[in-house]
Amino acid sequence: MSSQSVAQAWTTSSTATAPAVDGGRLLRRIEELGRIGRDPVTGGITREGFSAADREARAYVMAEARAAGLCVAVDAAGNIIIRGSAAAAGERPVVLMGSHLDTVVNGGRLDGAYGVIAALEVVQAWAESGGGGGLEPVAVAFTNEEGALFPQPFFGSMVLAGRLAGLPREPLDHQGGPLRGPLALAGGDLDALGSAAWSSDAVAAYLEVHVEQGPVLERAGSRIGVVDGITGRDVLTVEIRGTAGHAGTTPMAGRADALAAASRVVLAAERIAAERGLCRVATVGRLHISPNSPNTVAEAVRLTADLRDTDAARMRNAEAALRDALADIARQTGTDIEVVGRVYSDPVATSADLRALIEETALELGVPYAVLPSGAGHDALVVADLAPVAMIFVPSIGGVSHVPEEDTAPDDLVLGAEVLLRTALRASGLPTGPRR
Amino acid sequence: MSSQSVAQAWTTSSTATAPAVDGGRLLRRIEELGRIGRDPVTGGITREGFSAADREARAYVMAEARAAGLCVAVDAAGNIIIRGSAAAAGERPVVLMGSHLDTVVNGGRLDGAYGVIAALEVVQAWAESGGGGGLEPVAVAFTNEEGALFPQPFFGSMVLAGRLAGLPREPLDHQGGPLRGPLALAGGDLDALGSAAWSSDAVAAYLEVHVEQGPVLERAGSRIGVVDGITGRDVLTVEIRGTAGHAGTTPMAGRADALAAASRVVLAAERIAAERGLCRVATVGRLHISPNSPNTVAEAVRLTADLRDTDAARMRNAEAALRDALADIARQTGTDIEVVGRVYSDPVATSADLRALIEETALELGVPYAVLPSGAGHDALVVADLAPVAMIFVPSIGGVSHVPEEDTAPDDLVLGAEVLLRTALRASGLPTGPRR
Repeated sequence: MSSQSVAQAWTTSSTATAPAVDGGRLLRRIEELGRIGRDPVTGGITREGFSAADREARAYVMAEARAAGLCVAVDAAGNIIIRGSAAAAGERPVVLMGSHLDTVVNGGRLDGAYGVIAALEVVQAWAESGGGGGLEPVAVAFTNEEGALFPQPFFGSMVLAGRLAGLPREPLDHQGGPLRGPLALAGGDLDALGSAAWSSDAVAAYLEVHVEQGPVLERAGSRIGVVDGITGRDVLTVEIRGTAGHAGTTPMAGRADALAAASRVVLAAERIAAERGLCRVATVGRLHISPNSPNTVAEAVRLTADLRDTDAARMRNAEAALRDALADIARQTGTDIEVVGRVYSDPVATSADLRALIEETALELGVPYAVLPSGAGHDALVVADLAPVAMIFVPSIGGVSHVPEEDTAPDDLVLGAEVLLRTALRASGLPTGPRR
Repeated sequence: MSSQSVAQAWTTSSTATAPAVDGGRLLRRIEELGRIGRDPVTGGITREGFSAADREARAYVMAEARAAGLCVAVDAAGNIIIRGSAAAAGERPVVLMGSHLDTVVNGGRLDGAYGVIAALEVVQAWAESGGGGGLEPVAVAFTNEEGALFPQPFFGSMVLAGRLAGLPREPLDHQGGPLRGPLALAGGDLDALGSAAWSSDAVAAYLEVHVEQGPVLERAGSRIGVVDGITGRDVLTVEIRGTAGHAGTTPMAGRADALAAASRVVLAAERIAAERGLCRVATVGRLHISPNSPNTVAEAVRLTADLRDTDAARMRNAEAALRDALADIARQTGTDIEVVGRVYSDPVATSADLRALIEETALELGVPYAVLPSGAGHDALVVADLAPVAMIFVPSIGGVSHVPEEDTAPDDLVLGAEVLLRTALRASGLPTGPRR
């Protein structure tokens, strides 16, 4: 969306009072939704996309929206679409807002869920205040953003953005079970995915509010994050083949120890980001070791090296540096090292115009904000194919996410929704009302 | 056993011809035993101590011994004891020979099994030739040397050596299942273990023939190994606690990455043996990583560091060096590192007198031999509490063991049994017959 289109979207407001977020309602819904899929022992949420718990969460959100008099629809990908009224649909371009309801295994209650509830609050508050403006506010709950059960993350946003070519014809879960049935249970239809794609003309802007999932805002004392880009991700699967041997009888000199080689890879990846600064972050989080026995020199290790940056050229350089290191380590350790898989997503810039509206809102509300990249992927990354996108972050306590301890101060949750509402109103050419 | 006791053991032979190994019979038994617990796909042997496959192997060996007219008994620990005749038992001190029938998961057919079959062959050949000599030859198949199912390795030899204090009162398997029942199925009795202990007076010598499980003999072109000592083993269980974080959102600067710390520990252990030469070998073969997810900075790693040497003082120094490295790594990585477990066994020297008899035998037979330490633990290590011990190694093809590919040339298998027989005859004061 250009500045010009923001100006064009300006229309005279038909409402007497500007819409405002109902903080109590927002927090109640976050709380209630956070009970679904909750482990009573760890407190973690397990609500894998298309699981029974996910269906329960979907039903909860749809019931809340319907009880509020809003119009709820489910598209062929299972995405939940919430509008002020069915009658108004399609008359104006849309300011789309949302996130996802599914979680990782034993994750937190805010990642995704908060963005959906905040978007619902905005659509409801807007509708309650009369529903005018140059853009129609629409909330969306995308299916299967995490890909915890069915390893097709961003399933819902990919379908909505028309990226069908990137999806398998018959998606399967990790055990080879087909998505077709679970998708139908969620109200979708695998054979009609094309019907769920939106045109660029229909979407003027996409706004996603989300917990930061990192420590930057908390450390900086900022209450709002304006996301300038979503980091690209380059995940290499590396296979190291050494020679198994008895830990007591294999002399050090003749060893080809796959775990010793893997340890060098872990540290090389760390060095690429931490010391050499070739990319923003680099992580080896998973090793699969064979035979993984205390008494045996490891024969083989498979690991994933995850490199991220907001600049595509830097990501290429970091990958090249890692591949050089792999070759050196193979020579040094007498192992064979091969890159057997690569999953790459380009970094995505957010819209400068939408960022400006968020910053104006933060200044209007007098809250300290920071501009930062998103280290994680989000549905916004995919919707960027279709429309200008922006993201609003709120601080994560302790910087943690994807764990039961994931949390954000209630005031910050309410503030994030308020910033979302005011940014959407601005984009729609409506007044934002007094600071509360 | 002193040289003097060897001389005292000398008596006039009552046999016309010296006993000789029947190579065809030996190889047939190794072959037949190697079919029990064999995976038809990998060819690996899984015959965990006290498993059904282990019982089948025990039944096979007992049936072979009985068919040969030998006297078979099972003690309270389930050890199989094979003598030439029941009548002669207890009249003379014993030259005990043997090893174990149990294996690791997907191991080889020779580790342990070969030593039992060779000892059976010696007792049978000796009996067939008349059975004289100053020492009574006795074969033993010790229970649960590997500890694959019930984590009490060396169970049988510990009981025979009277090391009851080192065993739990109610041994359990890895799932908490009690040993009592499976031990009874093997013919043992958990409440009568004391009855299976031998006195030092009863055992003049223990000889164990075994595959080397390493590459030293093969590389040196030696066909027989004379083991000068069994390396001690010092296994530290190390727990590293860092902080979990999203791989994309956690800046490098604030990380406490448990896997990056563990990688430094792996390399520090390697350096202690390979570069600093503080002990003979050092191995980290197993990491347990939490959560072990590609997308998450590792929160915790538990690993085992295995240090071995034939010199106890060097083992102490190597452990101290590793502990220093752990403290440095904890400081450097912001993680907590703690040694939460330690399993230690002292190095054991073999008997110089028995070694001399093995070397004489090798010279007599004109086969190239080498003196080397055993890198692995063996029942001999435990029996050393009770009696002078020695071990005879045969070459492992490719130096591999505890894998399906574990193998030794048939000629070397026959030669090892022949060296065992002739060494036992020498210890017993009997002539060894012509070189064949």
